[in-house]
Amino acid sequence: MPGEFDLIRRHFSRPAMHTALAGGDDAALVVPRPDMQLAVSTDMLVAGTHFFADTDPTDLGWKALAVNVSDLAAMGAEPRWAFLALALPAADDAWLAAFADGFYACAEAFGVDLAGGDTTRGPLNLCVTVVGEAPAGQAVTRAGARPGDELWVSGRPGRAALGLWALRDGLALSGEGRARCLAALHRPQPRVALGLALRGLASAMLDVSDGLIGDLGHILEGSRCGAQIETAALPLENLLDCGAPHDAALRALLSGGDDYELLFTATAARHADIAALADRLDLPLHCIGQLNDRPGEMLLRAADGSLQPPQMTGYDHFA
Amino acid sequence: MPGEFDLIRRHFSRPAMHTALAGGDDAALVVPRPDMQLAVSTDMLVAGTHFFADTDPTDLGWKALAVNVSDLAAMGAEPRWAFLALALPAADDAWLAAFADGFYACAEAFGVDLAGGDTTRGPLNLCVTVVGEAPAGQAVTRAGARPGDELWVSGRPGRAALGLWALRDGLALSGEGRARCLAALHRPQPRVALGLALRGLASAMLDVSDGLIGDLGHILEGSRCGAQIETAALPLENLLDCGAPHDAALRALLSGGDDYELLFTATAARHADIAALADRLDLPLHCIGQLNDRPGEMLLRAADGSLQPPQMTGYDHFA
Repeated sequence: MPGEFDLIRRHFSRPAMHTALAGGDDAALVVPRPDMQLAVSTDMLVAGTHFFADTDPTDLGWKALAVNVSDLAAMGAEPRWAFLALALPAADDAWLAAFADGFYACAEAFGVDLAGGDTTRGPLNLCVTVVGEAPAGQAVTRAGARPGDELWVSGRPGRAALGLWALRDGLALSGEGRARCLAALHRPQPRVALGLALRGLASAMLDVSDGLIGDLGHILEGSRCGAQIETAALPLENLLDCGAPHDAALRALLSGGDDYELLFTATAARHADIAALADRLDLPLHCIGQLNDRPGEMLLRAADGSLQPPQMTGYDHFA
Repeated sequence: MPGEFDLIRRHFSRPAMHTALAGGDDAALVVPRPDMQLAVSTDMLVAGTHFFADTDPTDLGWKALAVNVSDLAAMGAEPRWAFLALALPAADDAWLAAFADGFYACAEAFGVDLAGGDTTRGPLNLCVTVVGEAPAGQAVTRAGARPGDELWVSGRPGRAALGLWALRDGLALSGEGRARCLAALHRPQPRVALGLALRGLASAMLDVSDGLIGDLGHILEGSRCGAQIETAALPLENLLDCGAPHDAALRALLSGGDDYELLFTATAARHADIAALADRLDLPLHCIGQLNDRPGEMLLRAADGSLQPPQMTGYDHFA
């Protein structure tokens, strides 16, 4: 008959590295480094809405933290501390052990201390809050893009959506392609090194969680700009080579969420710097369009030069 | 068809007072004051476990923040920022408006900025994370009590439990008593002023959320002490005057949670200082016992001098 406190202690008590007081008191105590501002983000993941209830708990533990670390990366903040609140339908020891393994794997990969949390009974729900640090004034928001800035996206966006459609809707992919897409869905890689390197380079940035088009809309709104995307510049080959049909690939790239790639803007004068960064980080960075001074306008330019608005929007939990 | 982002904006967009960037970006940005350490606490409240699904949403909004602010009070930390993650079965405009009213009423009462959050669809679940500040090294933990220290509790502990039993089990109270006990249950008052005043006075402190006896156990464990409680010193009159029978009053006081009073220890040399604090804050503070050097031992001394262990323990969500 393990009680709440025993459960927490047993699975979530690995030593913290840079936390004055972790867990077990009314609050955790952390000491920010001098002259830092703090970036704080909270995400709630609900079974049936954000993940299948039978998702492998180790993957789920990784992802619950990774999507939050990604929010910090998108601000150019260094991840430092995490707080985990868990509602569980039952105290399942094996599930908690596996979940903790995935969570700590992500925490160790990105230098995050699990500093505190809460555990209770209820329908499966994971709420993670993360705190990161950035030198005062250097965080990158959504509001700094200017007309003329180039639009960039990192990595291989769209694979997570293909993985979801393969699982949920039976979308056919190649064997190896399916494995790559499921890995993108279950083990997203927050682009922390990229986010930190883009401080002082990117004018605006966010992570793509709800789809490239939908999230681009947030940059355009925050920065009062429009954008034109070059269809020919979209990194479709990373999806086609997984065996996805062209239409599914395009839709996954433009409207699929869950990849947690960074979408950012920078002046054209920094193009070469960003290309060099791609080499240094061994991470593809794609220049896919340009911003303009027509607030809210978003157009795709096709290979034949024609312009049209995108047909898909991001995922909205209450639409 | 209001979308997720519209809902959040409409109800949770009151201006922040001391937040560099609140809401609407990947993360909020906050700037701690110099030489402060941060206290961070997360609590998850689940319908059916922590509150009735039909609880008045204004009360629920107050309480969701109040229980977290109370955790900061219990560290002697000044509440500064809150982050709210909400899972809702449906986007209910009237419910959200009322909930936001209660939440902001508590935020304004205690100087807290709602700096960020998340909203999603799912079984009703509220996860609040709060961040407070204390001068480095001055936060009060559970680990500093010493044998000989006096044990104190604030306010009128037990009323919230009586209110719960009145609602759930039909416990009969006087008309006015019932109203007082329901107010204690629905609108707990975090003891922030007391918590701040006890920095440098209290040797250990926590807030009573799971019952006085159960929570005292956490101080004894953290401080490696035992304790003897004087039954005659327990503030039973605050429960008896609500019309509660003696047995229910004693049980509510010792094992009822949800009052969020502060339980703390201090050397006997500070007794007069603490009594003076009660006057200054116009808040009853009761010296109910003393700590000793028998780790883990907890005994109640009855009026006839006999000693016995308490018969009730705190509430455990997974027991």
